[in-house]
Amino acid sequence: MEKFRGSVLLLLLAVSTASLLAQETTPDVDHHQTVARVLLALILILLGAKLGGAVFERFHQPAVLGELVVGMLLGNASLLGFHGLEFLKNEELLALLAEIGVILLLFEVGLESDIAEMKAVGLSAFSVATVGVIMPFLLGWGVSAWLLPKAHRFVHIYVGAVLCATSVGITARVLRDLGKLATREARIILGAAVIDDVLGLLVLAIVSGLIRAANRGATELPWMSTLWIVVKSVGFLLGAIWIGQRLSPHLFHLASKLRVHGMLLVTSLSFCFLMAYLASAIGLATIVGAFAAGLLLDKVHYRDFLDRGEHELEEALRPLTTVLVPVFFVLMGIRVDLSSFARTDILGFAALVTLAAILGKQVCGLAVWERGVNRLAIGLGMIPRGEVGLIVAGIGMTLIVQGQRIVTPSIFSAIVIMVMVTTLLTPPLVKWALTRADVRATIAPSESSARS
Amino acid sequence: MEKFRGSVLLLLLAVSTASLLAQETTPDVDHHQTVARVLLALILILLGAKLGGAVFERFHQPAVLGELVVGMLLGNASLLGFHGLEFLKNEELLALLAEIGVILLLFEVGLESDIAEMKAVGLSAFSVATVGVIMPFLLGWGVSAWLLPKAHRFVHIYVGAVLCATSVGITARVLRDLGKLATREARIILGAAVIDDVLGLLVLAIVSGLIRAANRGATELPWMSTLWIVVKSVGFLLGAIWIGQRLSPHLFHLASKLRVHGMLLVTSLSFCFLMAYLASAIGLATIVGAFAAGLLLDKVHYRDFLDRGEHELEEALRPLTTVLVPVFFVLMGIRVDLSSFARTDILGFAALVTLAAILGKQVCGLAVWERGVNRLAIGLGMIPRGEVGLIVAGIGMTLIVQGQRIVTPSIFSAIVIMVMVTTLLTPPLVKWALTRADVRATIAPSESSARS
Repeated sequence: MEKFRGSVLLLLLAVSTASLLAQETTPDVDHHQTVARVLLALILILLGAKLGGAVFERFHQPAVLGELVVGMLLGNASLLGFHGLEFLKNEELLALLAEIGVILLLFEVGLESDIAEMKAVGLSAFSVATVGVIMPFLLGWGVSAWLLPKAHRFVHIYVGAVLCATSVGITARVLRDLGKLATREARIILGAAVIDDVLGLLVLAIVSGLIRAANRGATELPWMSTLWIVVKSVGFLLGAIWIGQRLSPHLFHLASKLRVHGMLLVTSLSFCFLMAYLASAIGLATIVGAFAAGLLLDKVHYRDFLDRGEHELEEALRPLTTVLVPVFFVLMGIRVDLSSFARTDILGFAALVTLAAILGKQVCGLAVWERGVNRLAIGLGMIPRGEVGLIVAGIGMTLIVQGQRIVTPSIFSAIVIMVMVTTLLTPPLVKWALTRADVRATIAPSESSARS
Repeated sequence: MEKFRGSVLLLLLAVSTASLLAQETTPDVDHHQTVARVLLALILILLGAKLGGAVFERFHQPAVLGELVVGMLLGNASLLGFHGLEFLKNEELLALLAEIGVILLLFEVGLESDIAEMKAVGLSAFSVATVGVIMPFLLGWGVSAWLLPKAHRFVHIYVGAVLCATSVGITARVLRDLGKLATREARIILGAAVIDDVLGLLVLAIVSGLIRAANRGATELPWMSTLWIVVKSVGFLLGAIWIGQRLSPHLFHLASKLRVHGMLLVTSLSFCFLMAYLASAIGLATIVGAFAAGLLLDKVHYRDFLDRGEHELEEALRPLTTVLVPVFFVLMGIRVDLSSFARTDILGFAALVTLAAILGKQVCGLAVWERGVNRLAIGLGMIPRGEVGLIVAGIGMTLIVQGQRIVTPSIFSAIVIMVMVTTLLTPPLVKWALTRADVRATIAPSESSARS
């Protein structure tokens, strides 16, 4: 009840803020006006994100879903006749803050991942990830080619690419909530999720590279440029890891000699931004660079900072991500065109894409090499498409082929539906698969001991 | 030596980043390009700020001076024939990030201040602050009227306004470094610095309100509109304090019912942004609202959050200010036109403005009501003009009267010189005044015991 009153109060605060927007709708280039608009937008987005997150967490759903829903409400207020929020869609600073937010999110995920851990789960994680990228990619391509016969071939390929990457964040969170993080299944799922993030980003790099090459009217064989992009991407990741592993300890050791407050945070952010810039300079997404930067940074490298009492990097990053990451997801929601939900063709497309996303990952369980592993739980654990899927779709909205956007507002709406459904389904399904196995293990203890 | 190598390495990193800018100088509206440019700008600004801060702190000077100097170097690279950094001056997104940074800084200063503490130092602090605002204001007006006879009257008033506010941050830091924070002198200086921040912002509100009214071709008597602005500003501050003190505990208590991670930070930021927005909506600077928001928030209000293990608000804010505040000060430095330093008229103007700033505060010591207080130390402790002076000057660059900027690049350069000189002089002068008193106290212990 108290919780409910808190929600109502925050809602009132948000609504009264929104009502202030009535005077703000005239376009105005004045700096003061821009600042005022951005401040209002940030209030709405931050409070809305937390409110939505709290409501969804109350129903044991990931907070990210709530942020998407709040964004959808903010972005579609004009359907109810309130046009004061339309500026949210075109405010360039918000888009920039969102991009910095998602760069920091992938940096954080990279920090949580660890090259050594990835090697340990080894072969199984790699084959699970590979199968989990190829199957949804082909299924997504097929669904798009079947339902959108008039669209350009690159659109089909892109829909396939969106379905590749499992959301590490959501999977990890579900497994932690269930207290199953230390199981072999969890380690394989997380390892595979990290690898298929990389593979998914690789697919993204290839596809968007092909599209850009086509737009430049490239005459060489597409297979040559594909090969070149693969070489470039793999080269970037491996090169960054090779050079970075050798260089970053020295860099951080030397930076720690500058005894200024906040030096660890600033050095790490600069490293992350530099890698993001370099990735974008060679045609990859900025988030690939940010993820590589996070993967490279190891606590060992910045021990000098911790020794003199600076906060853990993860701890110093958290306030930044707390504020900036929701901006990304709320903005993603804002870009969803709810009126397209009334069109049965989009709903049908969304349904089949979602099916492709779910079925495509179920083959993963068969790719596990070890015996006695809960293959069903692994297939189900790979289902959620979250951040990376939305990010890839968002990039697709900025790509143009033959004068048309690769990801149209309709396709984007369908993808958001897919992300929401897969994210919503995973927690109950994984819980069911893992507890069902526990029950069987209790009934047949001999099988259980053979398994462990 | 190690420290020096660290500086060189960071410098190399910054320079190699800068060299990447060679390809980035063509104007381009593409979103990817904008993101890449902003990332590069942030790397340069963040690393540069820390490098400059470290060098200045090594010579026992405040880090903020180093940030200004680095900004001046970045902004004037074209004097050396390198034009790759010119985009820093016109990137609107950087200006917005800087504005959010300074809003957060004033919020933080407001959080550190406390209404109860301000009441305790009472009468002396208030009269010191009042004298310390009136005298520099009149002296600054006089200097400007004497040296710039052709400029509009508002320019003179504005130069006076820039000289009003003592920098709380720098003063507090100097006193803490000397281990004198608990002395009566320190409490009076800090109390007065807080009050003259408010008075300085009030003067800013009045002056910029008068300028805006004049631009609208207001026909009523200037004294009437002045009175109206005073009523509005004082009304805003008192009203905000009165309503806020009663409302914010309930607001935060209710918000704490939403058990989402980071709720305290998000609620506080939204409160800060809302107050900043409201201040700008009634014609005050956004920072007045942010300061009021910080003043209002008391730890008592968000005890519910701390009880359940969230970080202290100050701690959660620090990473945000670590990243965003330097953007403001480096950008201030970038806007300094170093070529104007070669003009003797600007240097002469800067010298007299600096003299007005220093002498204007020396009368403060006489305004102390208690006996046995080190009046010299108080006058010297009030000298530094930092954040608020630069902020006021920065706002002046956006104000236009009769088609001309109030604060021209030349005046701005002179003000930056004034800020740097006053900030540089304060640490040694205050140290001298306080240790000199200690020596006298040791020689004449009876006087000392009478004093304590």
